[in-house]
Amino acid sequence: MEAVNKQNAIDLSHHLSDVARARGVSPLKALQKYFGQPGIISLAGGLPSPAYFPFDSLSGEIQASDALPATPSRPTSTLSWLWSYLSSKKADTTISIPKYPAHPGDINLATTLQYSTVEGLPQLRSFIDNFVDKVYRPAYANPAIITHAGNTDGWDKVVHMLCNPGEGVLVDVFTYATVLAQMQPAGYKPIPVDIDFQGMLPHELVAILSNWDEVARGMPRPHVLYQVPVGQNPTGMTTGSRRKKELYDICVEFDIIIVEDDPYYFLQEGPYVPKAQRQNGADVIRDPEHWIETLSPSYLSRFDHQGRVIRLDSFSKTIAPGSRLGWYTGNPIFIEKLQRNNEVSSFGGSAFSSTLISTLLNTWGHDGYVRWLLGIRNQYTERRNFLMDCMHEEFSLQASYTEKGILDGALVYLARNKSYLPGRSYSDEKSNVDYGNVMFSVVPPTSGMFVWVRVNFENHANYSPEFAKTLEMKLWTDIAEAGVLFAPGWMFNASGVETPHEGHYRISFSNASTEDMRRALQIFAQVIRKFFV
Amino acid sequence: MEAVNKQNAIDLSHHLSDVARARGVSPLKALQKYFGQPGIISLAGGLPSPAYFPFDSLSGEIQASDALPATPSRPTSTLSWLWSYLSSKKADTTISIPKYPAHPGDINLATTLQYSTVEGLPQLRSFIDNFVDKVYRPAYANPAIITHAGNTDGWDKVVHMLCNPGEGVLVDVFTYATVLAQMQPAGYKPIPVDIDFQGMLPHELVAILSNWDEVARGMPRPHVLYQVPVGQNPTGMTTGSRRKKELYDICVEFDIIIVEDDPYYFLQEGPYVPKAQRQNGADVIRDPEHWIETLSPSYLSRFDHQGRVIRLDSFSKTIAPGSRLGWYTGNPIFIEKLQRNNEVSSFGGSAFSSTLISTLLNTWGHDGYVRWLLGIRNQYTERRNFLMDCMHEEFSLQASYTEKGILDGALVYLARNKSYLPGRSYSDEKSNVDYGNVMFSVVPPTSGMFVWVRVNFENHANYSPEFAKTLEMKLWTDIAEAGVLFAPGWMFNASGVETPHEGHYRISFSNASTEDMRRALQIFAQVIRKFFV
Repeated sequence: MEAVNKQNAIDLSHHLSDVARARGVSPLKALQKYFGQPGIISLAGGLPSPAYFPFDSLSGEIQASDALPATPSRPTSTLSWLWSYLSSKKADTTISIPKYPAHPGDINLATTLQYSTVEGLPQLRSFIDNFVDKVYRPAYANPAIITHAGNTDGWDKVVHMLCNPGEGVLVDVFTYATVLAQMQPAGYKPIPVDIDFQGMLPHELVAILSNWDEVARGMPRPHVLYQVPVGQNPTGMTTGSRRKKELYDICVEFDIIIVEDDPYYFLQEGPYVPKAQRQNGADVIRDPEHWIETLSPSYLSRFDHQGRVIRLDSFSKTIAPGSRLGWYTGNPIFIEKLQRNNEVSSFGGSAFSSTLISTLLNTWGHDGYVRWLLGIRNQYTERRNFLMDCMHEEFSLQASYTEKGILDGALVYLARNKSYLPGRSYSDEKSNVDYGNVMFSVVPPTSGMFVWVRVNFENHANYSPEFAKTLEMKLWTDIAEAGVLFAPGWMFNASGVETPHEGHYRISFSNASTEDMRRALQIFAQVIRKFFV
Repeated sequence: MEAVNKQNAIDLSHHLSDVARARGVSPLKALQKYFGQPGIISLAGGLPSPAYFPFDSLSGEIQASDALPATPSRPTSTLSWLWSYLSSKKADTTISIPKYPAHPGDINLATTLQYSTVEGLPQLRSFIDNFVDKVYRPAYANPAIITHAGNTDGWDKVVHMLCNPGEGVLVDVFTYATVLAQMQPAGYKPIPVDIDFQGMLPHELVAILSNWDEVARGMPRPHVLYQVPVGQNPTGMTTGSRRKKELYDICVEFDIIIVEDDPYYFLQEGPYVPKAQRQNGADVIRDPEHWIETLSPSYLSRFDHQGRVIRLDSFSKTIAPGSRLGWYTGNPIFIEKLQRNNEVSSFGGSAFSSTLISTLLNTWGHDGYVRWLLGIRNQYTERRNFLMDCMHEEFSLQASYTEKGILDGALVYLARNKSYLPGRSYSDEKSNVDYGNVMFSVVPPTSGMFVWVRVNFENHANYSPEFAKTLEMKLWTDIAEAGVLFAPGWMFNASGVETPHEGHYRISFSNASTEDMRRALQIFAQVIRKFFV
């Protein structure tokens, strides 16, 4: 751990937007000297009496932190991993939060459901502080931490803090659709940077920044970079350590703030091994603490010695999306301004969420939560394996390193018709299907929830550059009409520029049953074969 | 009810900000044709599997909807009303939400804790739809309704929707401090309008609008009016029907959108009657339905035949502030844009909040919730009475209709030293205290949580216009040093202009114990007497 005191973090306050600069101390801060003094009677706040909160207690049945298996199931029983988990489930624990505490300092509804400090419930904050310290090991001492109302709301506030309307934000050329939908109306311009299977390409980033023409572009050089570095949405790609270091160094050179939106961080599933080659227990991880050590490091750790990273963590993928709760970690210069914004908007999230999640986490404890995360990771690993296994069953997948475009350098599977046999010529076949043509390419993801498929329209009989968008939508519609929904590539396209020779589809393996995943791949195979006829 | 079909509502879309205009349909809408079709397999979403949500059930002990008394306590027992409620408490009901539903359509965590439609949980929406219809009786058919993450977040999104930075918003000259703290950094200019005891003054509003000089002001004429019409924060004033009609008509003439932020709506406590004149049972309300009929109508009902009101409702004062949950009611033109904004930020609030509150409300039913609201109203009525009674004990309060400024026309209490007897001359007293001088004036609030005190600095020995701010802060500090916190007037001052001859203090009666309220008023009396010596 590179321990750099936060006092040494460079002053990055010139990055604040006009709005953020204008956000001073909150009005109540002026009265703070007297707040909470022993014996003082406060008639200053607009607090309802907790006597009139109709909830006298809240309870929850929570799963054991080791309810999800620590080891992946055998390949032969993939279909039933979920059922075996559900049937052998460990006993639940009951958590209960009273309205009034039995002992002073105990979590209680009279306090938590009241208007509160927007930096987050103390019992949640102390859990998170310890978690960040142990798991991310920030490269400087005492980064600031406050809760937010989910990463989407968190990002909304970050971009308002860092950018004036009309300014640009560097993003992956395919990026989270909601971030595009948030930025464009608000006047923030996505500046797309080409990606490969590890995310943003350093030389492309440098090319954009070093050749920036403020007049021609109509805006200053961007000073914010948005990235989902692990299990990227939509491509499923993960940015490794070396790439992170390269990108961070460029951001130092060009004075750029990195916003690390990392909801899939604990869904690092590791390399996909085809079913035929998978060995029982080959990638078994038994020790949660050891597993944490193996994770691709956050920008916070090792890299961010200058305090130029704002990290967004979320409970959406590890507890439940409906929680609308997460947290910021970063330079106090920025976190203080985000807190000022929270004070006049979200108040940092719902107290029902933070009370229940705080009690859940403190019941499990740090080690228990890490164990839970490992279980979650294993489940998504099984799901990733299952979807890729189905793809193997429906197509002839050939491993290759020779793909171009965003898959350059990755181990890519080239998908041909199932009947294709390498080396055999199909030119004499009566069928007009060219079994030898690659219909699509795919990089099995090492993290996250998504498989990203690149369809080669060049191999389509009706291919012509001007029909490219039509082809992406046509194939998507064909698949939907046949009963399967994928997410079409244009939703995530930050450039607005069509790539005539290819179309993209995001396939999620996070939620469907195994039967549905298998059936969906069968339908996809039928439709795309017909499409290429 | 003036039933005007929403198709007749005038097109107000020219009021949308540039940001709101740019917010098109959400990306997923494009795929909507296929979503939710029976039999379709969706691998399109990024939904985690609910099997991995660690909560297997949530429960709560909730109070009976009639737990709070329907009738106010006797004046002689004011001190103990809270204790009598707590000791005679009716039995709680247990609510329980399972992860998977016993019957299709039952509320269940697997559905509610998932990513959901941001317009709000269906079970909550149907409750609210019915509630709005029965309680507010909108003047046009089918106003649009969606949930939001609390009124503060709700307002934040409304002002971004309706205003471009640099534009002004009409507000009461004293208004909610958080709204000022939200607007000013974001570049929205509060345009203060003078108020009296019923809120904004129609002739002042007309004067501002009809004489608007765009060049001199540096901004276009405002087209948004923000008001807390019931139990206004900070002044406690309530805008009556006639005043609402006058203000609405002006807004029609000058094409202004009214944002009705109404968290204290159900805290309509009625006129204050001094303890000595209060009769047992004189203002007893036994029938909740009858009580609803007596409430000052929302702008939504009777007045808003054009769909130019956006109403903000909150559960903060009626259930718990930590819920961060409420709802918008208004013209679909606006609500659709607010929904687009929610989709890229708050998602309309936490599912833990909406699941628990929805279950609470549906357990109570509509009539039960109205009964609960009546109980809440009675509790705050007792509190309002108690604080005013304490003021009576500590000061000589003289009822008057002759006050100037914002209290013009109201029944005002003029507060003099307790030893003051009307008609007696104090000029011969040895003491240098002028018992005949009015130290402060106060209008007993008919709604809400606050008593607003106007101190007459003209009667202070060291009064001089240039020391006015100093005097407001000096008295506030004197009171705080003596152990009592009020909220000082400058926090709420939208004009930034000092009124040299007066200072203001907001005193909350919502949460302190009766002992603390009594003690606080004793301390206030001691300090202000000394201040005026």
